[in-house]
Amino acid sequence: MPITRFSVAPLWQQTQALAAVARGQAPADMVITGARMLSTYSERIANDKEVWISGGRIAAIKPAGAHKSAAAPKAIYDAKGGIIAPGLVDPHIHIESSMVTACAYAEAALLNGTTTIFCDSHEIGNVMDVAGVEAMLEDARMAPLSIFLTVPSTVPATSPELETAGGDLTPEKIGAMFDKWPEALALGEKMDFVPVAMGDPRSHAIIAEALKRGRPVSGHIYGREFVAPYAASGVTDTHEAIDIDISDDFVDAGIWVFLRGGNPATPWNSIVEAIRPITERGASHKRYCVCTDDRDADDLLHFGLDWVVREAIRLGMKPEQAWAMGSLHGATRFGLGDEIGGLGGGRRADLVLLDDSMKPVSTWYGGELVVDHRQITPVLEETLNQRYRYPEAAYNTVHTPKNLKLIPELPTAPVTANAIGIEMPGIVLPLRKVALEPANDWPTLLEKHNLSFVTVIERHGKSDGGIAHGLLQDFGLTNGAVGSSVGHDSHNILLAGTNEADMALALQTIQDAKGGIVVVQDGKVTAFVGLPVAGLLSDKRVHEVAAENVALKRAWEAAGCTIPYMGFNLIPLSVIPEVRITDKGLVRVPEMVLAPLYE
Amino acid sequence: MPITRFSVAPLWQQTQALAAVARGQAPADMVITGARMLSTYSERIANDKEVWISGGRIAAIKPAGAHKSAAAPKAIYDAKGGIIAPGLVDPHIHIESSMVTACAYAEAALLNGTTTIFCDSHEIGNVMDVAGVEAMLEDARMAPLSIFLTVPSTVPATSPELETAGGDLTPEKIGAMFDKWPEALALGEKMDFVPVAMGDPRSHAIIAEALKRGRPVSGHIYGREFVAPYAASGVTDTHEAIDIDISDDFVDAGIWVFLRGGNPATPWNSIVEAIRPITERGASHKRYCVCTDDRDADDLLHFGLDWVVREAIRLGMKPEQAWAMGSLHGATRFGLGDEIGGLGGGRRADLVLLDDSMKPVSTWYGGELVVDHRQITPVLEETLNQRYRYPEAAYNTVHTPKNLKLIPELPTAPVTANAIGIEMPGIVLPLRKVALEPANDWPTLLEKHNLSFVTVIERHGKSDGGIAHGLLQDFGLTNGAVGSSVGHDSHNILLAGTNEADMALALQTIQDAKGGIVVVQDGKVTAFVGLPVAGLLSDKRVHEVAAENVALKRAWEAAGCTIPYMGFNLIPLSVIPEVRITDKGLVRVPEMVLAPLYE
Repeated sequence: MPITRFSVAPLWQQTQALAAVARGQAPADMVITGARMLSTYSERIANDKEVWISGGRIAAIKPAGAHKSAAAPKAIYDAKGGIIAPGLVDPHIHIESSMVTACAYAEAALLNGTTTIFCDSHEIGNVMDVAGVEAMLEDARMAPLSIFLTVPSTVPATSPELETAGGDLTPEKIGAMFDKWPEALALGEKMDFVPVAMGDPRSHAIIAEALKRGRPVSGHIYGREFVAPYAASGVTDTHEAIDIDISDDFVDAGIWVFLRGGNPATPWNSIVEAIRPITERGASHKRYCVCTDDRDADDLLHFGLDWVVREAIRLGMKPEQAWAMGSLHGATRFGLGDEIGGLGGGRRADLVLLDDSMKPVSTWYGGELVVDHRQITPVLEETLNQRYRYPEAAYNTVHTPKNLKLIPELPTAPVTANAIGIEMPGIVLPLRKVALEPANDWPTLLEKHNLSFVTVIERHGKSDGGIAHGLLQDFGLTNGAVGSSVGHDSHNILLAGTNEADMALALQTIQDAKGGIVVVQDGKVTAFVGLPVAGLLSDKRVHEVAAENVALKRAWEAAGCTIPYMGFNLIPLSVIPEVRITDKGLVRVPEMVLAPLYE
Repeated sequence: MPITRFSVAPLWQQTQALAAVARGQAPADMVITGARMLSTYSERIANDKEVWISGGRIAAIKPAGAHKSAAAPKAIYDAKGGIIAPGLVDPHIHIESSMVTACAYAEAALLNGTTTIFCDSHEIGNVMDVAGVEAMLEDARMAPLSIFLTVPSTVPATSPELETAGGDLTPEKIGAMFDKWPEALALGEKMDFVPVAMGDPRSHAIIAEALKRGRPVSGHIYGREFVAPYAASGVTDTHEAIDIDISDDFVDAGIWVFLRGGNPATPWNSIVEAIRPITERGASHKRYCVCTDDRDADDLLHFGLDWVVREAIRLGMKPEQAWAMGSLHGATRFGLGDEIGGLGGGRRADLVLLDDSMKPVSTWYGGELVVDHRQITPVLEETLNQRYRYPEAAYNTVHTPKNLKLIPELPTAPVTANAIGIEMPGIVLPLRKVALEPANDWPTLLEKHNLSFVTVIERHGKSDGGIAHGLLQDFGLTNGAVGSSVGHDSHNILLAGTNEADMALALQTIQDAKGGIVVVQDGKVTAFVGLPVAGLLSDKRVHEVAAENVALKRAWEAAGCTIPYMGFNLIPLSVIPEVRITDKGLVRVPEMVLAPLYE
């Protein structure tokens, strides 16, 4: 039978049975013996213990061997001196970044010892509105992982004047999702921190929908000057602490800090700086968690939350503290500290067996052994082969006009182009004023100024042929095109290229597959990751998508792109300075106004 | 206008206004400047800060003087370098132990820097069933204090065969209270830990009512052997940690530990031992709180939760840690960490100004200055003079039969009496087999064997003349009688004496006042505390009741009683070994059977 979150009955139905097992009078389903136990409560590791499991829950922690004088357990697992710890709890992630469905995500999570995630399905909300969020919730409910929702709070990221999104999550729709879905435990990251701080009515109305139901509000904020008004607006966590001072400001303003770790080759690995109030300034770590936030499909496997915990240890935390930051603290932040995050009586038996380097060896989810010595077990294999299938509408979200002109007009007189500067790490994009002389052809101009084309095509079928053209400077692409149906946050089609033919091939490839990421060189597709679900997700297993993504990265690098794909797809994200491009045109940030390509 | 918990509007109605104040664009109602700020989040004290208050909430913490470059605040309070900390949160108390109403209790709490309490109105539930709990909730709603309910879980403490209580809180009634009262945030201490551990159906049905509504379950447990089955039953806190080992067991079983401090002259001051896992064994304190549990009316003033915090400091904790255990941790345990317990943005402005010895100087409740330099302010005085008046039924709960014989039959043949041994501290009461020879009168026998009479008279009008007689050994009373309408947990009339006339006077005094505690010597009442509300509470202000209680203690001691009144009123508590007396007779514990007076 497939394993889901619902395989374990609620505690209130099991207290008598669990007490009988804990007394030693009824047999445990499983005893994991010969273990050290990591207490996330007291932050200590105890030797020579065993855990008794019944009905998918922890009946008791006992001295090793205690089961011999109790009702004989149905099964025994010898931990051989390893460390048993609670499964990890990731307090902030976006499944869509991993390009896989929730059911597929679960496989990677369990391999890395993560058994609970708090998912902000912001991207699919931007494409499919409530229907997308709800489809992902159905997906989550079939996954062998505890997936709770932080309801997407900022869809669209800006306004219909500045971009065309597929979703528009109003306060009313958000309130209705809270009322309908018991796993909607919090409001997702309120990304529009400037409007929030400035008292924007819609932003505050959305926050109110969460607060009046007793649900906490997650945040996303840069800039120390915004911390006080943002906290006063009811936001009580953030994962965007990027340096020691703002990390310090957050914690003392009553905001839980989720230390975000990630592939150190990316700019998202902020834990190194954000942990310093603890390691250098004597701050208690009790209101700190670790999180992953975004992972592409292969980083998901290599830089799991377990890796972030080990980073915290490397940066100076005790292993017991770091593991607590990765489990109990997130559970506590979202009100689930009595259910998960520790090895307490009655808790879900979401457990990880660790080696001495704190690497997960085996994982139990709701008492079921799902990963054994780093291999998934048959019961998990069976579950993963019965993944949720998204509704047909989700497979039909790329609606682009025909016969588009994919590149801008060649200037016929001297103009100043508002080009988008591409610089590592690829988050802030500077406005570059480039003087363009009239030329006979584009190749001459592109080469002379290190330019390439960038084009955004509206794909939600909402505008009639919405398309915008721009220029990238120093993107590095000298031949061919790249394209993506993922383009934050509205996820219109994003193309860059040096010639219209290759760009057209990139677009056609994405259209044919109803979504994906593509690299074209010399008129040929050199890499492609199909993302047919909402143009965001593959429907394959995670290792397969990871392999496709590795091939994509290789082709991407071979094409000469100076920022990685995960930076490229932020080019339309019109909330980060200084200039972006959406289907409406160039957007100046923070002025939030459209700008012409040529002046 | 009187101040109540409801004087401060919910955060969701105020976020825009608070953000405007935090930005400096709208005036704060009050700025408390020139302060050090104690962060219960990071557990540090920052110098030179100020707090901006608006709408009864914290808009921002800023550097001292920052208000000068913002919209001019409506009022300024100079903290003169004192420490501003969040108001204390007491996670477990019984208001009835303090002999005052909730409205009166608030005065003492605020003087001691406590602004929130979690009240288990177990005693009034034992007398008046749901009506009593609900009357106290109405009382709590009119109090200038945040009073949340932990719904009484174990009423009656045993069974109708062993004692007659006025209340019978079934699972159905408890479920209905959760559904009716939003402040019912948890199930109160599940005192019958042996039945819980053994799987008793009613006990587990009651626990289920809380758990299925997502409400946590508070506990009360002795004995390391019971910890595992009790934890497996869903209990997640206890205040009965009495030594280092069980304190350790609790925390690692996932049970929050409330370190109970109290008058060191009483046996309830268990913090000294229970804190040792933190101070000696490296346990994190993050799942520890401090609490008061029970305080009589004058101890309430002298041994507030602030005193318990200072005890934790004396025992080795840092002041910032200890204050966090007294505020944020209790708030977090009950899911209110975003509302109280710290100086975060948007939180209620429940604040305390402390001197360097961590003694409260001034208190703000919901932004209102209610205690200023250790004196209550006019606004609090006004509120306290408009206290809740309990319904008439609450003033009519002492129903005893007429013409009772208050002392046992004089033995006419040699008998062995099952006497109740009185030993300090007065909790466990040993069974004493006393060989009584026939005698002509009681005085000879009493004197020879250090005995006094003890009598319990049913007062709920449920049985027809229910009365039981017993003998106390070594109670110390050599003349007169003492009596009480408080007698845990059923609160029948409890009398002890050396002669029937003085016992009759004691009974009459209690009957006339509809409840109270009395000392009679030589045919005269030497002390009396009237408790007309449910036979448990005075309806006077706290200082008046405290003065009456001081006089009572003096008379009690003068009468020679070897245990204090707060031990005496536990004599009927038929859940503590070895022998107790209820209106049904002598009860052997833990056998839970009735025993004859003479064998």
